[in-house]
Amino acid sequence: MNNFEFKNPTKIIFGKDSISKLSNEIPKDAKILMLYGGGSIKKNGIYDQVKTALANHDVIEFAGIPANPEYAVLMEALKVIKDENISYLLAVGGGSVIDGTKFLSAAALFEGNNPWDILVKNIKTDKGMPFGTVLTLPATGSEMNSGAVITRKETKEKLTMGGPGLFPEFSILDPQVITSIPQRQLANGLTDAFTHVLEQYMTYPINARLQDRFAESILQTLIEVAPKVLKDPTNYKAASDFMWSCTMALNGLIQKGVPGDWAVHAIGHELTALFGIDHARTLAVIAPSHYKFNFEAKKEKLAQYAERVWNITEGNTDAKAHAAIEKTEAFFHQLGIDTKLSDYTKDYEGTAETISKRFTERQWLGLGEHKSLSPDMVEEIVKMAY
Amino acid sequence: MNNFEFKNPTKIIFGKDSISKLSNEIPKDAKILMLYGGGSIKKNGIYDQVKTALANHDVIEFAGIPANPEYAVLMEALKVIKDENISYLLAVGGGSVIDGTKFLSAAALFEGNNPWDILVKNIKTDKGMPFGTVLTLPATGSEMNSGAVITRKETKEKLTMGGPGLFPEFSILDPQVITSIPQRQLANGLTDAFTHVLEQYMTYPINARLQDRFAESILQTLIEVAPKVLKDPTNYKAASDFMWSCTMALNGLIQKGVPGDWAVHAIGHELTALFGIDHARTLAVIAPSHYKFNFEAKKEKLAQYAERVWNITEGNTDAKAHAAIEKTEAFFHQLGIDTKLSDYTKDYEGTAETISKRFTERQWLGLGEHKSLSPDMVEEIVKMAY
Repeated sequence: MNNFEFKNPTKIIFGKDSISKLSNEIPKDAKILMLYGGGSIKKNGIYDQVKTALANHDVIEFAGIPANPEYAVLMEALKVIKDENISYLLAVGGGSVIDGTKFLSAAALFEGNNPWDILVKNIKTDKGMPFGTVLTLPATGSEMNSGAVITRKETKEKLTMGGPGLFPEFSILDPQVITSIPQRQLANGLTDAFTHVLEQYMTYPINARLQDRFAESILQTLIEVAPKVLKDPTNYKAASDFMWSCTMALNGLIQKGVPGDWAVHAIGHELTALFGIDHARTLAVIAPSHYKFNFEAKKEKLAQYAERVWNITEGNTDAKAHAAIEKTEAFFHQLGIDTKLSDYTKDYEGTAETISKRFTERQWLGLGEHKSLSPDMVEEIVKMAY
Repeated sequence: MNNFEFKNPTKIIFGKDSISKLSNEIPKDAKILMLYGGGSIKKNGIYDQVKTALANHDVIEFAGIPANPEYAVLMEALKVIKDENISYLLAVGGGSVIDGTKFLSAAALFEGNNPWDILVKNIKTDKGMPFGTVLTLPATGSEMNSGAVITRKETKEKLTMGGPGLFPEFSILDPQVITSIPQRQLANGLTDAFTHVLEQYMTYPINARLQDRFAESILQTLIEVAPKVLKDPTNYKAASDFMWSCTMALNGLIQKGVPGDWAVHAIGHELTALFGIDHARTLAVIAPSHYKFNFEAKKEKLAQYAERVWNITEGNTDAKAHAAIEKTEAFFHQLGIDTKLSDYTKDYEGTAETISKRFTERQWLGLGEHKSLSPDMVEEIVKMAY
């Protein structure tokens, strides 16, 4: 096991009707900016639940944070924060709204001239404006971690940020929100959480027994509950297991003491930036190619995953490892998620070269578990995903 | 899954040579009381590592906190805290030293007249004196939770306390400390952590899939590493898995959203109070009887444990459940831990009645997963453990 530090101070309030507990979590004298997305929360009742819970608080709203939270929109929200002397942020939404709120938490107290520097200069935030979340879409795990991904359309960039000051003070997780989520987004959430675990688990083996088993636990649980959640989102038991699995998939715990990979995300982000493909679907496109391309390095762990998660007992290490990749693709297909770039766009020719070129132009630190993947290798992986 | 709240703000600093990071975690202007036990840290080098790391801090020492931290000794330490204007506590030890430090954290800021009230009146501590820990013995999980157990010899009482203000600010876990721990204590630690998981897992089934699997992950890991740790405490990989498993066994995570039992601990504490038997060994004595006595209520979960943790595939639910209890006893025996009260004392006759009477005299809230075990039932369980 590698040395590690772990601290996650976010308070989770989990369960049925937990949104009503909101008012206890925010100081009475706070001036709150409530941030949300396209307005679905007004249809499914969550907006009303939040407003009722905060009836005795001072709340201003900012709506319209898009999927893949857009820098230009966030800069409008930042102006509201400054103009209205906001002191507390409340994200009501999925990963995009929460990530956008994290950027605002950092930007509100940022002392530099240009908030974009937080992203391009990778400035860690030690102290942000306090914020909480009401999660409406289980997927990204952003509700219990300190990272965010922000998109800037004008430059087709999608960059990450974070820091110990960007954990939500609290996150409210009511599995009943799942009843109103479209199938497409449920499938995305399942895929996103599943791939998050793979990024932290599918590496060279270092035999950290507990971290491996925790990762496998999340994968097994997602596989079991996925068909139940898609078939009947009102199945509260399945919804609870799904929601808690998504949070545990990326709250820092399973990554501690072990190597991480994250090449699938890095390459996938490019596909979202270039084609606007849903984040989760880009992961399902890239992951199988990534594991095939890096088969030798990952086959031990792929075989362990085959045995423990998919109950594959036949064959040697190579055979089990190959079978595990097939099972993973089949799982995505079962969710209704396509796993080839050509399923999403007819203009895929040249994408591999474009992405390789974009990576080459940036300060290249290497991708993958050893930071050893070159732009040329990425080009191959993307071609395998056509 | 039941509704739950989860917040654990303790910072874990895990790994080889991590004690040297101590000075970054405590304010430079703090006046520190360093608390430890019988002095083994002076033999194994941990004392020197701590003192070197804190060379530029103001540190006073208090030695001699015994196993099952004794109220009278802690009251002496409390006097030092007041007399010397201590502002920060540092526990260097195992669960007993850390638990004692938690009591002092609470008592130092307690506004009542009698600190004993914190225990007998079960007063929750919302804010204690800040403290950190350097863990020298993996076992209790106290390094990452907010609970403590304190003993008072004069009344033969062993009582619990806690509250959100009693999480350590940080805990340093260096698996190398295991190299100097006597076999007896290593076996105790393995048994203690194993039983902690059972208390949170071996209940009626509510099918919280992720919590079940996380609990099973810890049990499987402890079973795998136990012989390695006992055979060669310098096996750093095994030591790391052991140490992290003990922490995860009782940091709150696996208990969230599920029922807990804790009757084994409640009854076991009485055996320690009456006979001075090591805490972990009392758990190994009581657990098998408890599961046999409450077999009908627990057999579904016992059978799941049999299948997933012990790979028992033969037989019906009852047969698997019985086999799982046998496997558990055999595991304790393998560690060198006896599982009958008569193995520890010849004066066991009448113990069941004595414990039942003690429970009857207290305000009886019932024990077990439904708080439905009466003193009479406890009497039966203890008799089965003779």
